[in-house]
Amino acid sequence: MRSFVVALDVGGTSMKGALVDRVGTILHTERRATPRQHGPEAVVKTIRAFITHLTRLGDTLPTGHPGGDRRGPLRPKAGREHSGLAGVGLVVPGLVTPTTAVYAANLGWRDVPAEEFTSLDVPVMLGHDVRTGGLAESVLGAGRECTDFLFLPIGTGIAGAMIIDGEPYGGAAGWSGEIGHIPVLPDGETCACGQIGCLETYASAASVGRRYSLRAARPGTRAEQVVSLARSGDPVAVAVWNDAVEALSLALASYTLLLDPAVIVLGGGLAEAGSALSDPLRERLSKRLAFREAPPLNSAALGVNAGMLGAALLGWHAAGDPGIGGTWTVPLSLPPAP
Amino acid sequence: MRSFVVALDVGGTSMKGALVDRVGTILHTERRATPRQHGPEAVVKTIRAFITHLTRLGDTLPTGHPGGDRRGPLRPKAGREHSGLAGVGLVVPGLVTPTTAVYAANLGWRDVPAEEFTSLDVPVMLGHDVRTGGLAESVLGAGRECTDFLFLPIGTGIAGAMIIDGEPYGGAAGWSGEIGHIPVLPDGETCACGQIGCLETYASAASVGRRYSLRAARPGTRAEQVVSLARSGDPVAVAVWNDAVEALSLALASYTLLLDPAVIVLGGGLAEAGSALSDPLRERLSKRLAFREAPPLNSAALGVNAGMLGAALLGWHAAGDPGIGGTWTVPLSLPPAP
Repeated sequence: MRSFVVALDVGGTSMKGALVDRVGTILHTERRATPRQHGPEAVVKTIRAFITHLTRLGDTLPTGHPGGDRRGPLRPKAGREHSGLAGVGLVVPGLVTPTTAVYAANLGWRDVPAEEFTSLDVPVMLGHDVRTGGLAESVLGAGRECTDFLFLPIGTGIAGAMIIDGEPYGGAAGWSGEIGHIPVLPDGETCACGQIGCLETYASAASVGRRYSLRAARPGTRAEQVVSLARSGDPVAVAVWNDAVEALSLALASYTLLLDPAVIVLGGGLAEAGSALSDPLRERLSKRLAFREAPPLNSAALGVNAGMLGAALLGWHAAGDPGIGGTWTVPLSLPPAP
Repeated sequence: MRSFVVALDVGGTSMKGALVDRVGTILHTERRATPRQHGPEAVVKTIRAFITHLTRLGDTLPTGHPGGDRRGPLRPKAGREHSGLAGVGLVVPGLVTPTTAVYAANLGWRDVPAEEFTSLDVPVMLGHDVRTGGLAESVLGAGRECTDFLFLPIGTGIAGAMIIDGEPYGGAAGWSGEIGHIPVLPDGETCACGQIGCLETYASAASVGRRYSLRAARPGTRAEQVVSLARSGDPVAVAVWNDAVEALSLALASYTLLLDPAVIVLGGGLAEAGSALSDPLRERLSKRLAFREAPPLNSAALGVNAGMLGAALLGWHAAGDPGIGGTWTVPLSLPPAP
């Protein structure tokens, strides 16, 4: 029987599940809604059912599923005691340790132990959403060549994964990486979080869209539209985009001076702007630094799959194989998006 | 024969040497000028001679020197092969690895290997000045109770030692901890380093003195005078001190949000202001943070001896005893200042 892990990336609106074998083949992916509106326990129950479903499915897969070896025939559904399930990796938002989902404001969780998330007798490891994405970029992606870097996904919000000596760093109590809320413009605008001048209030994809929509009186304009409007010279879009790049350059200057990263890996929706983001950002970051070089700004390699691939690594960690991943050939073996 | 290490804290103007035994007794301290004006090689030669001198002296000390056991008689000077010297710990400014003084602008060093610093056949370990002070506070001082904290000595300049998982963290290339140069007020004053709005240009002891001297047209006013002028209501002093506290609160807010330290340990000359610094700083830092608590602000425990005590720990590391220090009772066993 082929052995595999269940990898689950739980977000506020949906959860991405996958089955991943020992050599990094993604055997199956599947998505379910996160029933947040039904309360914290309903989400836990859905996760439990999803893991059982994926496991049963994994045990019915042919051992010769595309990407793996093709020697075995189709196997019948196996009982739990004969399952190929080796471990579960679970990425969740909020404050988390490997064994407990300590606190998740948007899901209503407080101190949910890892074993609550499955009714199967299998080791489970939990991970923080952004930090597990950073783990995946570190082992499999854009941070493969170095041990100390920042993974900065810029999406609806902004949080960073700080990879230190090859491991995602959580801080004293698990609250590290809140680069989206450092006060880059201390006399600036009030952030949704209540603080003044946070990076996120200028530079998240949501903020870029919101600030343009407000100033140009064009409600609902999205960040990618602002980027192309700025490209074509729309002065409001240019100003909003400049503010975002300026705020990012200040945050990355502070990060660089404090932590001396080998590289900064940009990800998330806003990074899809490509050189429209990275070129001016690189230039401004260099200008902000007088006595040291700026680290290279690289693009994330794993895209939206970083969290799910990180969850697979956690699943294999849980199964007793923490060194796994070095020989995986992602993203080459990623199946087409469902 | 009593075994000991030579601990040397090399600064731009003077070097502090000490002999420290295995139980943390400081057997001897001595200071020499740093002959910076004679060039990089002269400084290395002086260090070499100083280490030999201190070693000879250590070998003539009675085994029953105050603070140690008192069983042995005075011993004659020992040949090198019979010396009690177990290791050398050397704290130097600039960019440094345990085995190489990579770059020190103010001493003119480039890639000086550790073994260059002594003609004796003994293991040598090098350390970065601020980070080794942080190591000492971590093992012996204000950070004894936690594994993740910031040691922030505020003196002529400002640099921080980031203790991560119990160890000083150097970054990808050894340039970490430059919190004095993060852009806290991005449209602010130009720093001596060439950047805009650095923490150091508002909040170092030198800057507090300089900014008051300039604004009040009272040249040469020192930071501690500014603190007492502010206490007595001098409006210029109040404004300058407020700027310093504001800049520090911004830098510590960024540090806290990024690194989630268990505690922030304030040291250096400016921390001698005591509650005149820590009370308003604590209040402003809390105000800057909306969704998390501020870490406690504590005072450094080892004062000006942090570097030298850290050098002693490095010396014992070099001697093959990296776990040393946990049972030392500093600063209680510190001899009176010479």
